Amino acid sequence: MSSFKVRTDLALEVRENMEENARECRGVSVEEEYREESELKITKVVIETMNGAKAMGKPVGTYVTLEAPAMILPDEDYHEEISGELARQLKQIIPGLEGELSVMVVGLGNRDVTADALGPNVVDNLTITRHMMKEYGKAAFDKKKVHMVSGLVPGVMAKTGMESQEIIKGVVEKTKPDVVIVVDALAARSTRRLNRTIQLTNTGIHPGSGVGNHRNAITEEALGVPVIAIGVPTVVDAATIVGDAFDKMMRQAGEEPLDIQDELMAGLGELYNMYVTGKDVDYEIKQISHIICDALNSALEAGA
Amino acid sequence: MSSFKVRTDLALEVRENMEENARECRGVSVEEEYREESELKITKVVIETMNGAKAMGKPVGTYVTLEAPAMILPDEDYHEEISGELARQLKQIIPGLEGELSVMVVGLGNRDVTADALGPNVVDNLTITRHMMKEYGKAAFDKKKVHMVSGLVPGVMAKTGMESQEIIKGVVEKTKPDVVIVVDALAARSTRRLNRTIQLTNTGIHPGSGVGNHRNAITEEALGVPVIAIGVPTVVDAATIVGDAFDKMMRQAGEEPLDIQDELMAGLGELYNMYVTGKDVDYEIKQISHIICDALNSALEAGA
Amino acid sequence: MSSFKVRTDLALEVRENMEENARECRGVSVEEEYREESELKITKVVIETMNGAKAMGKPVGTYVTLEAPAMILPDEDYHEEISGELARQLKQIIPGLEGELSVMVVGLGNRDVTADALGPNVVDNLTITRHMMKEYGKAAFDKKKVHMVSGLVPGVMAKTGMESQEIIKGVVEKTKPDVVIVVDALAARSTRRLNRTIQLTNTGIHPGSGVGNHRNAITEEALGVPVIAIGVPTVVDAATIVGDAFDKMMRQAGEEPLDIQDELMAGLGELYNMYVTGKDVDYEIKQISHIICDALNSALEAGA
Amino acid sequence: MSSFKVRTDLALEVRENMEENARECRGVSVEEEYREESELKITKVVIETMNGAKAMGKPVGTYVTLEAPAMILPDEDYHEEISGELARQLKQIIPGLEGELSVMVVGLGNRDVTADALGPNVVDNLTITRHMMKEYGKAAFDKKKVHMVSGLVPGVMAKTGMESQEIIKGVVEKTKPDVVIVVDALAARSTRRLNRTIQLTNTGIHPGSGVGNHRNAITEEALGVPVIAIGVPTVVDAATIVGDAFDKMMRQAGEEPLDIQDELMAGLGELYNMYVTGKDVDYEIKQISHIICDALNSALEAGA
Repeated sequence: MSSFKVRTDLALEVRENMEENARECRGVSVEEEYREESELKITKVVIETMNGAKAMGKPVGTYVTLEAPAMILPDEDYHEEISGELARQLKQIIPGLEGELSVMVVGLGNRDVTADALGPNVVDNLTITRHMMKEYGKAAFDKKKVHMVSGLVPGVMAKTGMESQEIIKGVVEKTKPDVVIVVDALAARSTRRLNRTIQLTNTGIHPGSGVGNHRNAITEEALGVPVIAIGVPTVVDAATIVGDAFDKMMRQAGEEPLDIQDELMAGLGELYNMYVTGKDVDYEIKQISHIICDALNSALEAGA
Repeated sequence: MSSFKVRTDLALEVRENMEENARECRGVSVEEEYREESELKITKVVIETMNGAKAMGKPVGTYVTLEAPAMILPDEDYHEEISGELARQLKQIIPGLEGELSVMVVGLGNRDVTADALGPNVVDNLTITRHMMKEYGKAAFDKKKVHMVSGLVPGVMAKTGMESQEIIKGVVEKTKPDVVIVVDALAARSTRRLNRTIQLTNTGIHPGSGVGNHRNAITEEALGVPVIAIGVPTVVDAATIVGDAFDKMMRQAGEEPLDIQDELMAGLGELYNMYVTGKDVDYEIKQISHIICDALNSALEAGA
Repeated sequence: MSSFKVRTDLALEVRENMEENARECRGVSVEEEYREESELKITKVVIETMNGAKAMGKPVGTYVTLEAPAMILPDEDYHEEISGELARQLKQIIPGLEGELSVMVVGLGNRDVTADALGPNVVDNLTITRHMMKEYGKAAFDKKKVHMVSGLVPGVMAKTGMESQEIIKGVVEKTKPDVVIVVDALAARSTRRLNRTIQLTNTGIHPGSGVGNHRNAITEEALGVPVIAIGVPTVVDAATIVGDAFDKMMRQAGEEPLDIQDELMAGLGELYNMYVTGKDVDYEIKQISHIICDALNSALEAGA
Repeated sequence: MSSFKVRTDLALEVRENMEENARECRGVSVEEEYREESELKITKVVIETMNGAKAMGKPVGTYVTLEAPAMILPDEDYHEEISGELARQLKQIIPGLEGELSVMVVGLGNRDVTADALGPNVVDNLTITRHMMKEYGKAAFDKKKVHMVSGLVPGVMAKTGMESQEIIKGVVEKTKPDVVIVVDALAARSTRRLNRTIQLTNTGIHPGSGVGNHRNAITEEALGVPVIAIGVPTVVDAATIVGDAFDKMMRQAGEEPLDIQDELMAGLGELYNMYVTGKDVDYEIKQISHIICDALNSALEAGA
C-alpha cells in the first residue's frame, strides 16, 4: 500500500485506488451497467455530500463513465452505438433540454499537440446553429424546436497569454448561453484507459483536480451557468507511470515501497510536465472526436 | 467611366479609382515615399474630416500602405527590411507605446482556408508575454520595460455561431487590454496587389467597407479601446474581377459600358461569395505572416 | 458563338459546350440517369474511337459523372446514398475486383491549399491494409478475400521539385500494385458545379487536358498498370470565368464577341495562375472527401 | 549496475551508458568541443572498425552531436548561431558538395503526431530547386553553382501501407539524386536531451537501432547513394524511462536490481508503443525545425 499521489481526472480511477473499505463511504453512490454485446461498461458515480466529496477529492455532482475497449477500432457501426449511448447520457445530464436552449460548446486544449487537440477537433466538426437562428429564426431549419449552438476554441495560455476561464467567461457574459459544455483531454492513471473511456460530469472542469487553485475552474460557480464537461483520458502523467510501476514491482518483491518514497519523488523531478501517449494517438483522437461530435450533434439537434 | 461598384478594403485603391479631380478633395492628405533600393513604396493617406470620409467611403483616420512587389520572394534579408519598416510604422501608430502597454493581438479569419488564415498564422507565432507578467512580473524578462502581449483567434461565424465582435468584446471587457491590434486578410480590387501590400490603420475593421452595417465593426467605438488594424489583400472578389475586365474591354472597344450594366450584375449573381486567389497562396501567406509577426514582435518587445 | 478556349477537366462540360450538331458525333455514346428522390444525376460518356477522342479533346475511355446539388449539405444519410452510388460505379470501373487486388490510392494536390487538398484528405482517412497483409496475411482480417490497399500523397512540384508522375512511377515499380486509383481536385468551367460533381474515369490524369505535354500524364501507358481517376471540380480558372461572363453579356447584347477577343485575352493576362473558389471551400472539401473516402473503403473492403 | 536494455538512437548516449573501461575501446574515437559563449557542445564520435561497431551497437561511420540547452528558447540570434554551426558540420559530412549535387531531402515521420512531425516540417519549409533547374537551368538562379534540391515526405506505414524504404528507394531510382539526406525524430534515453540535441551521421537510418532487421534500413547499402541522417530526440520510450528510474532508485537504496529484472519487464508490457513527450512539444518542434531547415538551406544554397 502506497501513498504515491494519484494524479487522475477520472472519478472512476479515484474510486479504484481507494482502499476496499473506503469505497463504501457515505455520500457516494455507484451504479454499474455492462452491455455484453457491445462490451460497453457504463459507471455512474454520484457524489452526494461534502463528506463524499472530501473522500473522493472531487466536487459534489454526477460522473458518468463509458468504457469500451474497442472504442477506437475502425468500425463505424460500433461508433454509432457508442455515440448513441453518449447522446442518451448527454440528454439526461444537460439541464433544460426539454425546452429550447442556447448551448455553447467549448473545446479546451492545444490544437497543435495531437493528444491535446480533442476539444478543438470536436468543436471544428460540430453543427453550429446560433448565427442562423439569430439571422433567420427557426424558419431556416423547418423544425418546431431548435437549440442555438455556438462553439468556442479558446486556445492555451502559452499561446494566448490568458486563462481559458477569462476568455470563456468574457464570451459567456457577452453571448449569454443557457449552458456551457466543455470538451477536454484528460490525464488518466492507467495507459489501459487511454482513448477508451469517456467521462461526463455536471461539475465542470477543475484544473489540478480541484486541489487548491480555484482561480481557473470552469464551473457553474465561475461562469454563472451550468457547465457540463466531457473528458477523455488521452495522456498519462509520466511521473505517475513510473510511480505506479515502482509500487507494483515493490509489492511483487514483497517490499515496502514507503521507505524510498522520497528518493523516488526526487528522481522523478525531470519528468515534471512530461506526458505519456501512444503511437497511434493521431488516429485514436480522430476516432474519438467523431464519436463525441456525433453524440453532441444528436443530443442538440433540432427537434421535428 | 463606369459606375461598377468598387469592392476593396484598401484606402489606396479607393483613391486610385476616384476621378482625377475628386482625388484632390479636401480633408484627405496623401504622402508618398519610395525606397529605390528596396522597391518599397509607402503611402500615407490621412482622412481628416467627415467630408473626406464621405468622399473616400472610409472613416476618418490614418491609412499607411507598404507595397513591395518582391514581398513574397524567398529572401530573408529583404523580409527583415520590410518587417523593420512595418515595425517603425507600428511604433508610430500604436498609442501609448512609450509607456508599458497591455496589447491584445487578434487574428481574424478562418484558419482552414489558406487565403483567410493570415490572422490566425500571425497570432500562432507571436511572442506572448501576458501570462508570464501576471505570474512572475518583469523579473521573468530581466528588462526595464515589458509590454503585456496576449493573443486571440476568435474563428469565423460559420464555425462559432458568434460574431467575431461579440467574442473580442467579451474578452476585452474581461482582460482589459489598453490597445487591440487586429490582423486580417482583405479583399483587393486588383490581383496585382495580392500578398504584396500591407495596410496599417488606426480605424479598426469595418466589415462591408463601412457601408451600413456597423453591428460588427471592430473599432474603438465598439470595444472602448483604440484598435489598430493590419490588413493584407489576399483575395479579389470574383464579381469585381469580371466587372473590371469588362469595363476595361468596353473602354478599349470605345463602347459605353453603362448600357448593359444591369445584365452584367445579373449574370454575375453566381459569383456571389466566390473569391479569386493565386496558385501559390500557401507559400505567400506563410511568408507574409512571418513578416507581420516579426514586425509585431519587434514593435512590442520588451525594452532594455 | 465564341471560340473562347474552354478550360475544364470534366468530359461533361466539354460536351455541353459543343455545338448541338457536334454532340451527335460518332464514337461517343452518352447515357443519362436521374434519381428523382435523391436529385442525383448520373451521366456516362464513353469515348469509343479516336474520332470521338479528337472531337472531345479527351482520350478514349469511360467518364462517369455524379451530380448532386445537395452533395455538400450536412446530411449524413444523403452522404451515404451518394457514396453508396459512387462505390457501385467504382466496382464497375476498377478492373479485377472479382479477384484479390493490390490497389494503390494516390492523393494528388497540395495539402496546404484548401481547394487542392481533396486528394491528400481522402488518402489520410482511407483504410490501409497492405502492411497488415504483408505482415500477417488474411488472418489479420478474418475474411475470405482481402484487397491490399496502399496510399501515397506525393505532394506538389513546388514543394518536392519532382513531377508527381516521377514519384508515383518510382513507387509503383517498387511496390507493384495491380491498379492505381488517383484522387484529384479538378478545374470546372462553371461555378455551379464546384464541389457538387464527382467524375470517375478509367483514362487516368492528363495534366493540361491532354493537350500536348504527355510527359506528366498519370495513365496506364505511363505507369504500366490501369489507372482509375476520381476527380472533383473545386476551382474555376479565373480567366475562364471572365471569358464566359463576357461571352454571355455579348450574346445578350446581340453583339459579336469575336471582334475583341484578342484584347480580352490580353486583358486577362494578369489572371494567369489565378483561381476562383467559394467561401465555404473548407467545409465543402471536408464533406466531399468523406464521401469519396467512404466509397473507396466500401468498394475495396475485405469480402466476407 | 543493470543490464536494462538501452533504447536510444543517439551514439552519444550509447557511449555514456557504457562502462568506464569499455569507453576506451579500440576502433572508436571521440572529440569534444565546447563553445562557452553559446553553451554549445559538439561531440564527434567516429566508429572506425567492426570491433568498435560491435561495442557501440551502431554501424561504422561518423556521428556528430550538437547539444545546446537553450536550443529552443525564442532567441533568433541564437538560432542562427546553432543553424550556422549545423550548416558547417553538414558541409563537412555531405560528400561531393564542392561540385554540383542533386540532393534529395527526405522528411520521415508522421505529420499528424506533433513529436514525430519534425522531418515533414523541415521538408515543408525547404528551398526546393530541382524543378526550376530542370525547366530553366542555372539561368533561373543567376549563380555559377546550383545544387538541385528535391524533397520527399513518404509518410508512415500505418497510413501508406508501405515501408518508408520502399517509397524512398522507388523515388531514388526514378529521380537519381547523388545524395539522400534523411531528417527524422529520434528516441533518446534521457528527457534532458529532448529537443536540445541534433545528431548528424553518414550512416543513415537503422530502424530498431541496427539490431537484426535490416529490411527497412535507409542507408547507402539499401539506396545505392550516400545517406546522411539528421536526427533530433523528441521522445523517450516509456519503458526506458521507467526502467531508468527504477535502476536509479535501486542503486540509491543500495539494492541489486537484477533480481527482479524479469518482473520489471513483464510489468512494463503495457508501456509497449507508449512514448514520453513534453508539454511544449509543438513549440519546440517548430523551433528546431526552423534551425535544421535554415542549416540545410544554407549548406545547399546556390553559390555565387
